[in-house]
Amino acid sequence: MADAVAATPEPPYYAVIFTTRRAAAARSPEYEALAARMIELAAGQPGFLGVESAGDVAAGITVSYWAGLADIERWKADAEHRAAQRAGQTRFYEEYSVRVARVERDYRFAQGDTPVRA
Amino acid sequence: MADAVAATPEPPYYAVIFTTRRAAAARSPEYEALAARMIELAAGQPGFLGVESAGDVAAGITVSYWAGLADIERWKADAEHRAAQRAGQTRFYEEYSVRVARVERDYRFAQGDTPVRA
Repeated sequence: MADAVAATPEPPYYAVIFTTRRAAAARSPEYEALAARMIELAAGQPGFLGVESAGDVAAGITVSYWAGLADIERWKADAEHRAAQRAGQTRFYEEYSVRVARVERDYRFAQGDTPVRA
Repeated sequence: MADAVAATPEPPYYAVIFTTRRAAAARSPEYEALAARMIELAAGQPGFLGVESAGDVAAGITVSYWAGLADIERWKADAEHRAAQRAGQTRFYEEYSVRVARVERDYRFAQGDTPVRA
């Protein structure tokens, strides 16, 4: 569901950087299903622009992109998402951070592009 | 070198979100050494606040945190970093994006904290 490199529009837009260190309980199909469901659920929200996810139990980073701060507030307050947040705190994460950031500029490179800007 | 969850100060500060899909040449000790060296080099730059890195060949995300935009510009222009950027474009990455974002707010949870904000 997540892209390796999300195709976001021109800035400005917003990023939610979710960084995790998982607990032992996250080594489970239940955790994997919940994580996949949250990405699916986020992707259906208003203002969703894309999501990137990488990592494993020791270190995971998921970055979701949003049109505006109101979209992020709405996603944070979603009832199913709230239940997942509680499960994350009580069972699945040793530690995590959530950072809300305004993307000011971006740059994208793919093989076939002209290499290295001046 | 990278932390699972970086201990950054109170916002505002800046994030550089570096998302990659690696090429076959990145399955090499040379790539791993270069990636580790870049984290070491970044950590010695003025304004560096922390770095988080997760993922593998299919999808990698590294987020570095900085006090200000001028620090990011200086890091981008660093000669050894520039050489690594060129190697990334010509050899190690199929695709990547760099997003510069201003962190407006953050939230951190660790086991032992009181669960779930209202």
